[in-house]
Amino acid sequence: MEDTITAIPAMLADDLRLHHVADVVEFLNALPDEEAAELIGRVAPERAVEILDQPEFYAAPEVLQLLPQAQAASLLTAMSADRAADIVHLLDAPVRASLLTRLDAETRASIEKLLVYPPATAGSIMTTEYVSVPSTWTVGQTLDYIRQVERTRETVYAIYVLDPQTRRLLQAVPLRRLISAAPDAPIMSAARPYPPIMTSPLTDREEVARLFRKYDLLAVPVVDSAGRVLGIVTVDDAIDAILAESTEDVQKFGGVTALEKPYMQIGFAQMVGKRAGWLCALFLSEMLTASAMQHFESELEKAIVLTLFIPLIMSSGGNSGSQATSLLIRSLALRELRLRDWWRVVMRELPTGIALGAILGIIGLLRITLWQKLGLYDYGEHWLLVAFTVAAALIGIVTFGSLSGSMLPFALQRLGFDPASASAPFVATLVDVTGLVIYFSVATIILRGSLL
Amino acid sequence: MEDTITAIPAMLADDLRLHHVADVVEFLNALPDEEAAELIGRVAPERAVEILDQPEFYAAPEVLQLLPQAQAASLLTAMSADRAADIVHLLDAPVRASLLTRLDAETRASIEKLLVYPPATAGSIMTTEYVSVPSTWTVGQTLDYIRQVERTRETVYAIYVLDPQTRRLLQAVPLRRLISAAPDAPIMSAARPYPPIMTSPLTDREEVARLFRKYDLLAVPVVDSAGRVLGIVTVDDAIDAILAESTEDVQKFGGVTALEKPYMQIGFAQMVGKRAGWLCALFLSEMLTASAMQHFESELEKAIVLTLFIPLIMSSGGNSGSQATSLLIRSLALRELRLRDWWRVVMRELPTGIALGAILGIIGLLRITLWQKLGLYDYGEHWLLVAFTVAAALIGIVTFGSLSGSMLPFALQRLGFDPASASAPFVATLVDVTGLVIYFSVATIILRGSLL
Repeated sequence: MEDTITAIPAMLADDLRLHHVADVVEFLNALPDEEAAELIGRVAPERAVEILDQPEFYAAPEVLQLLPQAQAASLLTAMSADRAADIVHLLDAPVRASLLTRLDAETRASIEKLLVYPPATAGSIMTTEYVSVPSTWTVGQTLDYIRQVERTRETVYAIYVLDPQTRRLLQAVPLRRLISAAPDAPIMSAARPYPPIMTSPLTDREEVARLFRKYDLLAVPVVDSAGRVLGIVTVDDAIDAILAESTEDVQKFGGVTALEKPYMQIGFAQMVGKRAGWLCALFLSEMLTASAMQHFESELEKAIVLTLFIPLIMSSGGNSGSQATSLLIRSLALRELRLRDWWRVVMRELPTGIALGAILGIIGLLRITLWQKLGLYDYGEHWLLVAFTVAAALIGIVTFGSLSGSMLPFALQRLGFDPASASAPFVATLVDVTGLVIYFSVATIILRGSLL
Repeated sequence: MEDTITAIPAMLADDLRLHHVADVVEFLNALPDEEAAELIGRVAPERAVEILDQPEFYAAPEVLQLLPQAQAASLLTAMSADRAADIVHLLDAPVRASLLTRLDAETRASIEKLLVYPPATAGSIMTTEYVSVPSTWTVGQTLDYIRQVERTRETVYAIYVLDPQTRRLLQAVPLRRLISAAPDAPIMSAARPYPPIMTSPLTDREEVARLFRKYDLLAVPVVDSAGRVLGIVTVDDAIDAILAESTEDVQKFGGVTALEKPYMQIGFAQMVGKRAGWLCALFLSEMLTASAMQHFESELEKAIVLTLFIPLIMSSGGNSGSQATSLLIRSLALRELRLRDWWRVVMRELPTGIALGAILGIIGLLRITLWQKLGLYDYGEHWLLVAFTVAAALIGIVTFGSLSGSMLPFALQRLGFDPASASAPFVATLVDVTGLVIYFSVATIILRGSLL
């Protein structure tokens, strides 16, 4: 055996023991799966479990498939249940089936229970390794119990007090309050005067993360409809959920279907697929701009000078829309604003849009005047009217951009979608088509009798 | 006194005691400052401190200014030092000066120490209320000490072990390991075999948040250059930092200077200011599109049919760029990719861009053919050449969009800026100008001798 692994110095396995597990994971992530599996097969089982328990160790399913099945099964048994379930979920079907049969009944049951919950719910990120005690116990009894089970629990900093008959959750007591309480005091005396914060297994992880933020928690119990604890979500999982959600938000805002893996780990075909869908949808909607321009064909032929400013004017509408959308997406996500506040936002965006449009309009007016007067370009005898057309169109388009950009997240939320599905390209497309219509309508009014 | 506050039922003050502090804050946030101050003046001091300690209680500075100075000073003294410093920072200068003189020397010193650090650094979000013990102590001594100081510390779940001579940080021991250790064992026996994770006071909060995510911590010690502990950042502050950073990222990506306050709490002038800067910068850059079009004036006059597809083609470039940017911003922010990976990304985006461009090109070709054949629009005798021009331009522009959109965050990071400063409108502008040049160049090649 020793001979087959000379490629990896024995020293390295020792090193794995002497560094923080997160650094070990970073090191292992850079290795081919086979080498990572060999190393994990050689370290002490407790250390191997600690490594596999890290959600950042991407190759965990591959490594478990490479290890002898008996070893893989005993590692899975010792791992935290939520992470074990995540890994089992990613195993190839035949390996998964044969591994599950090798687990003891209890472990298999708790993993299978977790596999039931849809991804990105409280149930899918909770762990079943928490500390619970009956409400009849004293502080001292509880502390003794914690000493016994400490090593097998993901956190012991919150102790869940249950009704001894119904097993319903009564209170969550922080460990710090137990330490300073009298040992013979009843456990309920260390509890707070209000009910514990809890959540249900089907609650979205975004909502769960909000509980952590609002109540400054280290763990949240997940309870069934009868109030019995199914598991707990710990703060490190909440942080992972918050980051995953904000990555999703940025990607959606950029107009990409959210990726589940890091950029470099997505295959070419999948990458094209994740982007082509939205890009085609936007392209098809944007075709309306060609139709709009065909509609104004005669105006275009008479006044080619108008075409010069089409990209400038359209992009300003898209930019102001994308600004407004980004502001409102976050306000809605952080619950600073509710659906009912939409009218207050309209009354805010209307003057803001007019002011911003006026600023750009003045710049546009100055630009055309300057170029004309300096002889840099000849916009024709009606150049001043053209300049006013551009300025007036900018006010209209930027106002429309700000309004529609800010209302889009509200509309999506109202329709039951995630307000963060409002993407910058989507807003731009929305504003582009309308922007063209506004521009040519303004032109028809101002230039009638002169250019048109 | 009782008569002046009949507006607020006495019951309400009682209610404040019986609910979770986060819910109380939500309730107080909806009240006018005067009423909030009256209520806080009436509840038990410990409860008032707990309420003021919440960063989500926006009116805290105003409330402290409305309370009698003696009361305000005693509340500030009892608050956690990091939050007290944040509030003092927001007080009007005269009130701040007079309040600071009313504090005892120790409290004033710790607040003033925290005020030194620039915003959004570890120093500015750390607290000075942590537990530290000399390395000569036993587990039992440490637990006894924790029992004494528990109420005055923000967290007791990590105990910092210091060198008794130099006060340098040696280890961070989690409380859970103390509980199960023998009371007469030396404290260092409960420590891990690797040095503690720590940070420096000037480290950016984004970097600090990354430590929490990577190492699954509940608190990170902040040490000076000699290794002495200045304070600790707790996980709830790390979560707030993560959310603040991702809000900033979304807003920047939308092309807005990051707002420091919720949407509705920003004044009109400030809101216009935060948006006008970028909008004007983008507008000025986008003026290059007008210059580019002036350059191709003769082509435009000869082939007006080309103008019909300008918005469609330009927006596709912007959209593909914004997709690529959103993907890369997150990959860089989460450290999935490093600066040196830029070439791997180029080799990834080049085929992706060509594939996406080809997909859009085929759709465009079909659209023009369909409209022409169905008689919906007449693109002239050279319609097939026009269709090929549009398709070829789309491949070029989408490829250019994907490449420049993905390289922009790298370029910004290389220049020392936050890669998340790359905004969708900025990418769109970048791609618009080049897109026009690509379009007309392709047209000149394909249509020479026919339309042009």
